[in-house]
Order: sequence, then C-alpha cells, then structure tokens
Amino acid sequence: MKRLALTTALVGLAMPLSAETIGVSIPAATHGWAGALNFHAERTVERLEEQYEDLDFVLTTTPDPGTQVSDLEDMVATRNIDALVVLPFESEPLTGPIQRIAESGTWVTVVDRGLSQEGIEDLYVAGDNESFGRIAGEYFVENLEEGAKVVVLRGIPTTIDNERVEAFQGALEGSGIEILAMEHGNWSRDDAFTVMQDYLSRYPEIDAVWASDDDMAVGAIAAIEQADRTDEMWVVGGAGMKEMVQRVSEGDTMVPVDVTYPPSMISTAIELTALAVMNEGLPVSGDFIIASELITQENAESFYFEDSPY
Amino acid sequence: MKRLALTTALVGLAMPLSAETIGVSIPAATHGWAGALNFHAERTVERLEEQYEDLDFVLTTTPDPGTQVSDLEDMVATRNIDALVVLPFESEPLTGPIQRIAESGTWVTVVDRGLSQEGIEDLYVAGDNESFGRIAGEYFVENLEEGAKVVVLRGIPTTIDNERVEAFQGALEGSGIEILAMEHGNWSRDDAFTVMQDYLSRYPEIDAVWASDDDMAVGAIAAIEQADRTDEMWVVGGAGMKEMVQRVSEGDTMVPVDVTYPPSMISTAIELTALAVMNEGLPVSGDFIIASELITQENAESFYFEDSPY
Repeated sequence: MKRLALTTALVGLAMPLSAETIGVSIPAATHGWAGALNFHAERTVERLEEQYEDLDFVLTTTPDPGTQVSDLEDMVATRNIDALVVLPFESEPLTGPIQRIAESGTWVTVVDRGLSQEGIEDLYVAGDNESFGRIAGEYFVENLEEGAKVVVLRGIPTTIDNERVEAFQGALEGSGIEILAMEHGNWSRDDAFTVMQDYLSRYPEIDAVWASDDDMAVGAIAAIEQADRTDEMWVVGGAGMKEMVQRVSEGDTMVPVDVTYPPSMISTAIELTALAVMNEGLPVSGDFIIASELITQENAESFYFEDSPY
Repeated sequence: MKRLALTTALVGLAMPLSAETIGVSIPAATHGWAGALNFHAERTVERLEEQYEDLDFVLTTTPDPGTQVSDLEDMVATRNIDALVVLPFESEPLTGPIQRIAESGTWVTVVDRGLSQEGIEDLYVAGDNESFGRIAGEYFVENLEEGAKVVVLRGIPTTIDNERVEAFQGALEGSGIEILAMEHGNWSRDDAFTVMQDYLSRYPEIDAVWASDDDMAVGAIAAIEQADRTDEMWVVGGAGMKEMVQRVSEGDTMVPVDVTYPPSMISTAIELTALAVMNEGLPVSGDFIIASELITQENAESFYFEDSPY
C-alpha cells in the first residue's frame, strides 16, 4: 500500500523513481554482422521502452576496446545502470572492467564473445558453432551423392572456426562425400575469392562449396561466376546475410540454403535481461546457447529483415 | 493493410483469429518441488495472458505419463496449439508423442527432464547440476577449517545425483575437508532421517552436512535435533524450499544458506516460449541452462514466494 501511494504521488514526473536502467554496449557497425547487431539492438531497445514504462536504456556503440571500457565506466558513473548487456570488442581488455561492474552488484549479460575468465557474468548468450557446422554438413549429406566432391573455405584460425569445421566434418563422416581441400578464406570476401579461384584451377570437378560464412560465400560465388562454372556447383555460406537470405527465398539454385548465426541474438540477450530486471525471482542466470537453424526457401521470410543493413 | 482491416472487422469477438495458443503440460503437484512448479506455471500464465492480448494458454497437470500423452494429444486436436511447453513426467514414454508434435511444426520447449532422443525440441530449459554441487562445495570450503569433517546425503542414484556429487567433491579438492560418508537418502525426508541417525551414531565429530536437497535437509535436521547435537553442525540442502529460505532469511545458524534448483524455471521456459511465438525472427531456439545460485540471508527475500506451497 505504501508503494501504491508513492507511485500515485509521482504521477506526472518524467521518470518514476522506480525506473530501472539497462546499459547496452556493442561494437560499432564496422562490418556486415556488426551492422545487423546494431540494427537489432536499436529495434529491441525501442520495443522494450514502449513495452515497459519503468525501463530505460542507454545504448552505446564502440569502435575499439579502449572506448568500450570508458563507455562502460560512463554508464556506471553517470547513468547508474542496474544491468549491462555487453558484446565485448575483445575478451582480454574487457574482462577486468566487466568483472568490477559485476562485483558491484550490477547484473551482467555477456553476448557471443566470452570473457577471459569464467563465472563473471550472470547470463551468457551465444551462438552454437557446433550446430552451425553440423547443420551445413547434414544438408550436404542429404543433397549430394556418394562420391561427390566438395571444397571448404575456413575462417580466421580460431576455436570458433575449429568447432564449426569439426562439426561439418563429423556430419560428413561415412557419407562417401570427399572434401578436396579446406583452406582459410579468413571470413573475407577477397580472401575467399582468391582461395576459390585456386580451387577452381586445381579441381576439374567440384559439386558443392561450404563457404562457412556469407561474406566468403559472396567471394566464392564471384570466382565461380568468373570461371563460368555456376551450373556445376552450389554454395552454402552461413550467418544469415540479407542478400543470401533473399537468394534462398527466390529459389536461387546457386544458394539453396543458408545457416543462421544470428546477429539478432543481441535482441534475445536484451529481452532476457529485461525479464531479469523486471521480474525479481525469475531465474534467468545461466548459459543460453542459441542453436543455428537451416534457412530454406520455405522459412526464409522469417529470417529476412528489410531494414537491416546485413 | 489487409491484416489491419480484418482485425478491425473482428473487434468484439472473444478470440481474434490471430491469437496464438501455448500449451503447458506439467506433472501434478504430488510433491513439494512439483507443487511449486504448478504455482509458478499458473502465475506466469496469468501474467502473460494479461500482458499479451493475442496470447492464450492451456495448462494441464498430469498424474502419470499416460495421462500426459493424452493431454498432449488433446491440446493438439482440440486447441490447435502453436507451441508447447512440457516437463515430461518420464522421458521414455513421452519422447515419441512429443516428437510427433514437433514434426508437425509446433514449437516445442522441453523443461528440465530431457527426452530420450536429442534434437527434438526447439528449446531446452534446465537446471545446472554441476553448479548446484559446486556452489554448495564452495560454501563448505569458505566456511570450514582444514581438517573439518562432513557427511553427505545423496539422492536417488541417477546421472543428476552423480553430476551434483562430483561437482561438490571437485569443489572440496585440496581443501583438507574430510568427507566421512556419502550414502543415499533418495531425496526423501524419511530415508534422510534414517541415514543421518546412522551417521550420528557412527561419527562423534561432524562439522557440517551436505544434504543436497531441502527435503533431505528437513529429515537430517530432525535426526540432529533428536540426537541433541544442533550446536555442533550446520546443514546445507538445496532446491529453494520455502521453509528453508525462511530459515536462511532469519539467520538460523543451523541452515546458513541454501542453493537454488528453481521450480520457477518453468516460468522462464514459458516466458521464452511466449517471446518465440510473439516475435517472429527472434532467435530463441537452443539450450538454456539455468545456473544454481547461493541463497544467503542478504538475498533470501527474492527467493521467497509467500503463496507458493514449497
């Protein structure tokens, strides 16, 4: 009853005393996936500010780890945030600053890029590299004959890339599909173009390409088109880039499917953090590993965001 | 525009055509934890029906696996559910029926008790047995001297119990704390009472008891009181039973802390399923493993639910 009386007395103030503030700190939109990350973060913040009267957000985008550290310090010092959703620019330099925020009692949600030390954050939301590789591999097994020949473009040498590639290889085991080569295209269109040109000159038969990333798929497709071998093979990328989802949705035979590694996971992280802040006692602490999904012509629509830059 | 016109025309009907229905199927309140499960499920369904105009729920509680199978069939046949949240009574008999529902295109969220086959559900929400045991063990290490003597009550022999006990032992490693005995109290007050009586007669020195469950803690405390040795040792249970949380909150030296394995995880599962159904494109598919938390006198309030039966 006391609370109710207080609230009534405060009607008319711009911000009720009880308002909670969530800080969201993400890398700036320097490349495709990060661009989509920004799009989804902004969209979700707008939606939740409408949904919850007593919830405020402060969203910052950051060009480098140093700026992100000072963004976080600002959020705590000047906005007195109750919770933080952060996709660390890099793990190492952000671990200490985020740990201090968590230790001060602020709820911390870490997205995608883990910290260098375990157990700091309340909630960890991340993609699933195992399913990312496995789902692509399963599609290859279901859509290629025994004896088919494929080439693989790998990302930058990292555990992320290793987990994806191992899962892809695991899915192909016993299928009789032959992997001709697996070289690093470093998640870059240009590198992927060069590696694919090399593959095309070395191998007279290639039935399919696992580009393992949509940017690399774009580079690979350019090389295949230049070599005039588009009738021979199809390409599976990964991440859910807008142009790729559109090609899938149009039934493009060159790009039959895509596999998600959704930048919109930032939305899931923000939604869960809002639930944690607004519902005392709701258990939202833990690890949420978001599965990759196969984007097909049938379901492509729900993975296509008209206004997203990626 | 077409959609808008349709909606306008339907104003006044009890259920708009666009309403989504979520089915929730859980075991009946036959024991403490399940009672709280029911309490939290009902509470969350009420809250979400208020929050979302276009969301309906059908909640059933079930006394046995057979009834649960026919509940699920009913939900599909007569309510045409768009999503299902299910805590399987038993894994084996429910796996086939839930698989058929998932294959028909209905979103499936499985809670706590996994199915016998992987990859059926869209979302899996479960507790974290490793952190359940580890957090208790860490409390023992921080609050007992080297050379302290403890006894352990184990649950029903299951992987759940194994994971918890291994994590507890792992946390104690190198601490110099001696585990005198670990026998099965089978998550039962009566069994725990009997095992604890035996421990008390065998060991002249016991500094602490890891009962590993609040029901077993109740049984163990009764035995300790009967033996008039309450000044000698404290007891840590687990799950977050109301009476135990209250004792923690009151600063009871016999029950200094508790560890969560929250029945309110059903609320998290329902909230996430509502997000999935109401927000096309939001990635909510995957595994959400909810961490156990240490309940202390300071934070006990947020783990205490006055109206819950448990």
